[in-house]
Amino acid sequence: MRKLVVIGVGLIGGSFALALRKAGIVDRIVGVGRSRENLDAALERGIIDVAHTLDDNWAAELASADVVLVAAPLAQYPALFATLAPAIGAKTVVTDAGSSKQDVVTAARAAFGDRLPRFVPAHPIAGSEQSGALAAVPDLFDRRSVIITPIAETAPEALACVSALWQSCGARVTTLSSADHDRLLAAVSHLPHVLAFVLVAELAERADSSEFFGRAGSGFRDFTRIAASSAEMWRDVALANRDALLAEIDRYGDALRSARQLIEAQDGAGLADLFERAAAARRRLDVSPGGDAKGQGSL
Amino acid sequence: MRKLVVIGVGLIGGSFALALRKAGIVDRIVGVGRSRENLDAALERGIIDVAHTLDDNWAAELASADVVLVAAPLAQYPALFATLAPAIGAKTVVTDAGSSKQDVVTAARAAFGDRLPRFVPAHPIAGSEQSGALAAVPDLFDRRSVIITPIAETAPEALACVSALWQSCGARVTTLSSADHDRLLAAVSHLPHVLAFVLVAELAERADSSEFFGRAGSGFRDFTRIAASSAEMWRDVALANRDALLAEIDRYGDALRSARQLIEAQDGAGLADLFERAAAARRRLDVSPGGDAKGQGSL
Repeated sequence: MRKLVVIGVGLIGGSFALALRKAGIVDRIVGVGRSRENLDAALERGIIDVAHTLDDNWAAELASADVVLVAAPLAQYPALFATLAPAIGAKTVVTDAGSSKQDVVTAARAAFGDRLPRFVPAHPIAGSEQSGALAAVPDLFDRRSVIITPIAETAPEALACVSALWQSCGARVTTLSSADHDRLLAAVSHLPHVLAFVLVAELAERADSSEFFGRAGSGFRDFTRIAASSAEMWRDVALANRDALLAEIDRYGDALRSARQLIEAQDGAGLADLFERAAAARRRLDVSPGGDAKGQGSL
Repeated sequence: MRKLVVIGVGLIGGSFALALRKAGIVDRIVGVGRSRENLDAALERGIIDVAHTLDDNWAAELASADVVLVAAPLAQYPALFATLAPAIGAKTVVTDAGSSKQDVVTAARAAFGDRLPRFVPAHPIAGSEQSGALAAVPDLFDRRSVIITPIAETAPEALACVSALWQSCGARVTTLSSADHDRLLAAVSHLPHVLAFVLVAELAERADSSEFFGRAGSGFRDFTRIAASSAEMWRDVALANRDALLAEIDRYGDALRSARQLIEAQDGAGLADLFERAAAARRRLDVSPGGDAKGQGSL
């Protein structure tokens, strides 16, 4: 690959660039982003060779690009796609790293026209609560999952290209429909992020919040680690996957009310059963594939 | 100290024994517990020198004990205290490691009579999702907090003794009233455990739960790690600190409903503000004292 363009050189885009560089399969990496400061950090760290802010004529880089990765917050996709789609070359493959997929496919359909076969929607299940080019690391995707959600129009060679690139990053690639992706991730990623944000925000707004945070142990720290994640990114995810997320919040609210009733009724047997079912399932997860994943990674 | 009796040789009791042994300040450690198998494991690992199940005449060990640590699930306290209180020596100090404190004080008042000054209620803010003597480690309390909640009757020398022992384990000791302890811990420990148990149990009972767990990344793993904790222990905590926990669940439910409304109304600015307040508070926690605590520790 001669030329990779990364739009959004943050934790994900920057780590993708570093991983492909480490694998030795890309000559030249162009970074595109909103913030000059972040791009300069990416240049300084050797993540990218050339930097353009969104005000520059970055689209001029696209005709000769082999691959374009869009790794920006989801709300920026429609505008980015509108600029990008008409400017890519006939052989350019475009992919993304967004945490929801149906809305990304909708945005791609609206922008790509007859170039839609060149677009491969994807989502690396990796990251951390950190963000920006300074947080990027080459092994972020090592042994992590990447879900590709191809659509009927996706060109097989474009799909194969994106799949191979992620495998070069050390990732395990699987495919799902966009709808299945959004339904599953709403439950195991988007809901937990909302739950963690809500808990920390609720404590933080108390007049005596420092008394509470001062008693937090590492259980609390692990539970709320994802609440340190990018607010902008997660605002966009919550809105992009709104219907599935609302359904999960409602389901969770019902389950929490049931648990509350057990506590209120002092139903020890019911509580022990509930907690034991959770503990058994959670312990199984630790011995499942990927179960050795510890800290620093995130959905 | 010549003789320490540990009632409940699990993660906490076993680690306390190992830490004091490592500090070289105890000659002989007697373990008392329900399970012969766990006591045998504790003997084999050198955590204790002598073992008694609850069916044995373990109370005969107490008259000559310098210190007794009760580290059993909270529901067992009343029965343990009833056996223990009349059997301790005039200089024996009794302490505990329970995650709630007001109910422990109530149980102590009911059992200790004129020996109440010998009892020092305490709670080490340490642990992990693991349990049992096999999980015990000597550095579990290193740089962790221990909260002591003395009552008016507590003898100053008993308080000083327990405080010194925890400091020998490497812990930072502070004091709180039992009521403050229970109010603060309900929010930063008991509530998060319930939230994590509820999330994992709700996913586990779905017919297609393996599809969901199969997409879980390390963000989900960290968020739910505490859901692998002992169901019995947390059933007892939830019931022991019921009123404060119910109040926290209600507060959390209100906050979750507010967040849900922002998502439903597609209020991006409101959501970004909510998430940013959480992220800012959570990042502050990482740079606060104890903020370097990573993984394996729990409330």
